[in-house]
Amino acid sequence: MPAKTLEIPGGKLSGEQLMQLALDASLQGIRGANPLVGAVLANSRGEVLHVGWHRGAGSPHAEADALAQARASGTDLRGTHMYVSLEPCNHTARTGPCSRAVADAGVSYLHFAIGDETEDAAGGAAYLRSRGVTVESGLLKDRAEKINRRWFAAAEAKRPWVTAKIASTLDGFIAAEDGSSQWITGTQARADGHELRQRADAILVGTQTAVTDNPRLSARDSAGRESGNQPLRVIMGERDLPEDLAVFRDSKVLQVRSRRPRVVLNELYSRGVRHLMVEGGPTVVSAFLRENLVDELLWYQAPKVLGAGRRGVGDLGISTLSEAGQWEIDQLGMQPGLIQLGEDLRLHLAPRN
Amino acid sequence: MPAKTLEIPGGKLSGEQLMQLALDASLQGIRGANPLVGAVLANSRGEVLHVGWHRGAGSPHAEADALAQARASGTDLRGTHMYVSLEPCNHTARTGPCSRAVADAGVSYLHFAIGDETEDAAGGAAYLRSRGVTVESGLLKDRAEKINRRWFAAAEAKRPWVTAKIASTLDGFIAAEDGSSQWITGTQARADGHELRQRADAILVGTQTAVTDNPRLSARDSAGRESGNQPLRVIMGERDLPEDLAVFRDSKVLQVRSRRPRVVLNELYSRGVRHLMVEGGPTVVSAFLRENLVDELLWYQAPKVLGAGRRGVGDLGISTLSEAGQWEIDQLGMQPGLIQLGEDLRLHLAPRN
Repeated sequence: MPAKTLEIPGGKLSGEQLMQLALDASLQGIRGANPLVGAVLANSRGEVLHVGWHRGAGSPHAEADALAQARASGTDLRGTHMYVSLEPCNHTARTGPCSRAVADAGVSYLHFAIGDETEDAAGGAAYLRSRGVTVESGLLKDRAEKINRRWFAAAEAKRPWVTAKIASTLDGFIAAEDGSSQWITGTQARADGHELRQRADAILVGTQTAVTDNPRLSARDSAGRESGNQPLRVIMGERDLPEDLAVFRDSKVLQVRSRRPRVVLNELYSRGVRHLMVEGGPTVVSAFLRENLVDELLWYQAPKVLGAGRRGVGDLGISTLSEAGQWEIDQLGMQPGLIQLGEDLRLHLAPRN
Repeated sequence: MPAKTLEIPGGKLSGEQLMQLALDASLQGIRGANPLVGAVLANSRGEVLHVGWHRGAGSPHAEADALAQARASGTDLRGTHMYVSLEPCNHTARTGPCSRAVADAGVSYLHFAIGDETEDAAGGAAYLRSRGVTVESGLLKDRAEKINRRWFAAAEAKRPWVTAKIASTLDGFIAAEDGSSQWITGTQARADGHELRQRADAILVGTQTAVTDNPRLSARDSAGRESGNQPLRVIMGERDLPEDLAVFRDSKVLQVRSRRPRVVLNELYSRGVRHLMVEGGPTVVSAFLRENLVDELLWYQAPKVLGAGRRGVGDLGISTLSEAGQWEIDQLGMQPGLIQLGEDLRLHLAPRN
């Protein structure tokens, strides 16, 4: 699936048209732990000046992206209008509060489609009003909600956004009968997995996987070097672990002594984890799937057939077809839902409502 | 993957360039039970007149396709040259002998990349020479062989070309624990499967599937009506079958009382079957896979997760990863190796060398 191109209409646009453009722009972003957000700067006649969007955790928010474009091209933003699909954040996270940046730039009117009630970000509208910006909200609310539905649900539940990653053969095995699993997928797929690790706040495996596979759980480049931004390594489970495991070579590691996903998610959320990548094994993946706690599923498939071995997903307590977990190829956002990585496939799946 | 477009160069081409074009044209065809073949008609100066290719079993051979184009546009073919990737057939199958059609049209020179030694088709070159056509061969032989490698192997072994079809969940199950399997895949994927049945000479299942699923094994359109061209229904296995099975409602049905794929393939080949579609169950699919007797694998994947159930591929006697069956997304031919059919995926896989 080719990347969608954003078309920016010329001439004077209505408020709804400007918000529509902000929503279209949001879809240029990468779906994941952060919501998809788009922001449009227009002059008071409704002519588009700049269009920004959020490219995923760690990169500027949509508002900051649009403001940066304005700065780069020397646009005078005094008296301009901004349409943004989500209420500007009011927190100083990795990117600084957008509310202040918008007010500082001289924007006089801001319209957001939906409010951000998450404890990390709330308060943007109030802050902007205190700075004299006229703030309205609600245009195309339903569509904006739909785009980030799953993300809002996680934020409201005060739990991290959960990505589960599986790398299996065509017939669903992550290791052969003798336990051999290096490597199911090829170099490109594995490099892609490491890139994803870098974007996550934490990576989680079960005690069984920690012992059997003894993974380092670090994000590494193609030369095997650990990249600068390392996620927290989390091991979930009650069992005592040998101290010489590879994962303990790093200090950024945590064992959560529970088999219950919600307990683990609470603990991680309280430690600031907002994006968790669950990497296995089958028992852990199943535990999250059973409780509908997987927000996106990244399934790497190697064109191999084993016929027997260790399965990627453990028992889910499902005995009849109509109860099967329903997913769909995620078509939202710029990261294509279905790609080939060398010989392998990567499916990016979202839970079907 | 979008369909590749064939570019036809203008001006005078060398013999090798003309054969190259014939090979490129062959790849416009649909891969399957018949070899991919392309044919180029040129005048004696090496200028291309017509380019034909074979679009799969039941449709005209590449030579006939090119000749039909010439007839349609009134091209005088006397004294023309033909470059074809495979020796013209000499048999009167569904499409009539190409050797005679080429000679009748007045072609004076024919060059084929590789000879056709299969008992059904051999003798084309000899016939053409007897009619006074100058016949040469061998240009781009290696590339031509590679394109149809697997097909030639089947033909030489005097066995049908074998397509195995699997429709499973993401985690490799073709039915839930309670046996429910209707429907794993959606309407588009199922319609595609019926279209494929129509192209096959025979469809095979094991006795277990015949009894458990009780399928009709007919090719049906979207309204459930049986299409005109029905394949032979084959049930493989030693077990006695109840007479009231759905498959026995049709007279074109055969039980081969063997568990050995080679015995079954011999029997079917002797009855004229050149393309067999193996549809399950797991034991039968495994038996063919174990003996490297699957020429192409069509794997429909529904974006569902079951966690347990009946697997699509049974035990293969493989215990370590390095022995896993290696496949690749088939990029040859016009039928894309990877497509979405509604919510489902279809992978068209070829054995990796």
